[in-house]
Amino acid sequence: MKRDDLARLDVEDPLAPLRDLFALPDGVTYLDGNSLGALPRATAARLHDVVTREWGEGLIGSWNTHDWIGLPRRVGDKIARLVGAGPGEVVVADSTSVNLYKVLASALAVAATERPDRRLVVSERSNFPTDLYVAAGLCRDRGYELVLVDAPEEIPALLPQAAVAMITQVNYRTGHLHDLAALTRAAHDTGALTVWDLCHSAGALPVDLTAADADYAVGCGYKYLNGGPGAPAYLWVHPRLADRFEQPISGWMGHEAPFEMSPGYRPAAGVGRYLSGTPSVIGISALECGVDTLLAAEEVGGLAALRAKSLALTRLFAELVEERLPGTFTLESPTEDERRGSQVCLSHPEGAFAIVQALIDRGVVGDFRAGDGAGSPDILRFGVTPLYTRYVDVWDAVEQLREVMASGEWRDERFWQKGAVT
Amino acid sequence: MKRDDLARLDVEDPLAPLRDLFALPDGVTYLDGNSLGALPRATAARLHDVVTREWGEGLIGSWNTHDWIGLPRRVGDKIARLVGAGPGEVVVADSTSVNLYKVLASALAVAATERPDRRLVVSERSNFPTDLYVAAGLCRDRGYELVLVDAPEEIPALLPQAAVAMITQVNYRTGHLHDLAALTRAAHDTGALTVWDLCHSAGALPVDLTAADADYAVGCGYKYLNGGPGAPAYLWVHPRLADRFEQPISGWMGHEAPFEMSPGYRPAAGVGRYLSGTPSVIGISALECGVDTLLAAEEVGGLAALRAKSLALTRLFAELVEERLPGTFTLESPTEDERRGSQVCLSHPEGAFAIVQALIDRGVVGDFRAGDGAGSPDILRFGVTPLYTRYVDVWDAVEQLREVMASGEWRDERFWQKGAVT
Repeated sequence: MKRDDLARLDVEDPLAPLRDLFALPDGVTYLDGNSLGALPRATAARLHDVVTREWGEGLIGSWNTHDWIGLPRRVGDKIARLVGAGPGEVVVADSTSVNLYKVLASALAVAATERPDRRLVVSERSNFPTDLYVAAGLCRDRGYELVLVDAPEEIPALLPQAAVAMITQVNYRTGHLHDLAALTRAAHDTGALTVWDLCHSAGALPVDLTAADADYAVGCGYKYLNGGPGAPAYLWVHPRLADRFEQPISGWMGHEAPFEMSPGYRPAAGVGRYLSGTPSVIGISALECGVDTLLAAEEVGGLAALRAKSLALTRLFAELVEERLPGTFTLESPTEDERRGSQVCLSHPEGAFAIVQALIDRGVVGDFRAGDGAGSPDILRFGVTPLYTRYVDVWDAVEQLREVMASGEWRDERFWQKGAVT
Repeated sequence: MKRDDLARLDVEDPLAPLRDLFALPDGVTYLDGNSLGALPRATAARLHDVVTREWGEGLIGSWNTHDWIGLPRRVGDKIARLVGAGPGEVVVADSTSVNLYKVLASALAVAATERPDRRLVVSERSNFPTDLYVAAGLCRDRGYELVLVDAPEEIPALLPQAAVAMITQVNYRTGHLHDLAALTRAAHDTGALTVWDLCHSAGALPVDLTAADADYAVGCGYKYLNGGPGAPAYLWVHPRLADRFEQPISGWMGHEAPFEMSPGYRPAAGVGRYLSGTPSVIGISALECGVDTLLAAEEVGGLAALRAKSLALTRLFAELVEERLPGTFTLESPTEDERRGSQVCLSHPEGAFAIVQALIDRGVVGDFRAGDGAGSPDILRFGVTPLYTRYVDVWDAVEQLREVMASGEWRDERFWQKGAVT
């Protein structure tokens, strides 16, 4: 296999033109869209318009004239198309952490009614920290026990005692893709509810919450949805559950009639009651531009086509690492397509941090994730975003990795200084 | 008094040049900065830079290279200067509703330890709805009773039974300014904690949380702080309390070492533990531009000078209404300077909504607030923002109001159709 072979694949790829929707810097091979999605070309102009015309000229009247008040639901409806939800079932609001707090609190309230005997919340030890922190806080406050498994296969055995299974569909460290439908079915069969975190799956692969009959889901706006740093997040609640409980942060935007400004809270019908404070107009407007890049893919096969390309790219990455750096790294992400998200994870016996830094220095941006201190290794993480990652990008990344290792430059002490990475 | 007299006041006003920091549309007299502050001139360019250079070119690395990770605290430190708080005591995060949820939950946790006998949370019936909704939800969940008074004078008598007094320093409807220091002292003397909402005071008048020895405070970014529609909010916790309790939404940004990504939550020292999810980089960047307009006033007298001008403007407004529309309106905001925020509220025997709409049609933007259905009337609300409201704006507003009433045009049915107003 040569770089030219891959360049030809890019030329023939019907998804390739989607890359033009993004403003990617020259000289950078960006494999970190699973941490922060790239900038859509439309975003800067859209925000300029929102700021100067809608806010600057329209001022307060834009809540009506530019339908700011409709933004959380309107962009929610667009995201619904990416996750197999119906119109009116998704709202954009707050952060993933806050949304998870809201839906998990609701799930526990439902479970407390239906299965008061169940006192466990089940999740993975390697789940994204904020999920675990939020769950631990709620479990402490509500008298539940948070049980963390070390491997996905251990989840089903715990479901018969679980009130709620809280699972991130694609694990941010390992890249493991859970079977949304099968795990939901297993949970329901044993009387447990499911809360799904879609941060590392929605926008990278087809998600069908309705077909899976899931209960609650949250997701983030700034990874595969390309909404920008700290973009607002979203949440979904199955219609059978959306009206059942008032979520704990009962703010005015979740009121049935927010502008009535009455002192008593009456929750809106459906998922609208999961809104709390005033929506971030600028943030949701940027997020809409990001979501639009995914909807643009609908004309060339949509998420199924993006998923096929994502799998081809991650497969290629692993093959090239094996071929060009034989015996150097251990592949930590799943080899089976149906169990792998949109990322490749590698470990090295001497650590991962400095190698990632040396790669970044060469313009290949992946990221580092620390091991859990209990056996799982530090990893190099490479996310592929099928909207803009090319076959040649995978070649270039592996080639630079080969040079980093061959030269030994990653041992230079400047690559060992730690700062914040996200 | 003639318009020319007021034009002369504007010429002589040392604060007048601050208006040039804003991009205000021609032909509009904007008196709704207490609902949505005007657009600072610096914001559009700043956001363009954040989006295209920091996000687009810097991508994930900007968390470090552009110190995105420091934004909540850095802009928090700037806001601290407006509210009499010290460096490191304020963070920018989430919405006012979510922040209020966090600090009120903490206040109740402290009260449960120190004064377990106290089961009341005291607030005003005319407090902003989201404050009441959030408090009602928390009181229900934690076994407290929310008691609402009809008039500010009724608060002190309830303090001896109160766990927490939750008060908005300037009432959004009535414009009543509470005495922050005196009420806090009265609360502490009787063993109650205080949670202050600064949404309608911070940025319009001097606030000194430290001198008042207050306990908790929250505030909004999109009113007098000019942060844009749905801007992130902020919160302050007195240092003696900041380390005492983990707030309920324990997200990764409130962790002592967020990028360690360990499964167990260890709260950051101080107010940093009140952060939950990933900060809204774009939103906080816009907010910073807004806060900078207030800090720019420090060279011409700061908040004391802004307050003096605000009082002069609201006094003028009330005088002109009395002089030019005698007997037409009832002044619903306080006449005493020391009890009045930065707004003037009027009622009319035949309602307020259509009059506000007719004024907006003439380019005078105030807003309407409905009565509470229990005796308090519908009001016309006119907010003055001393950074950009001129003396002639007050003249023009009252003159247009006079013409609206003299012509009877407000009775036109097109002004009676209700939509969302905020």
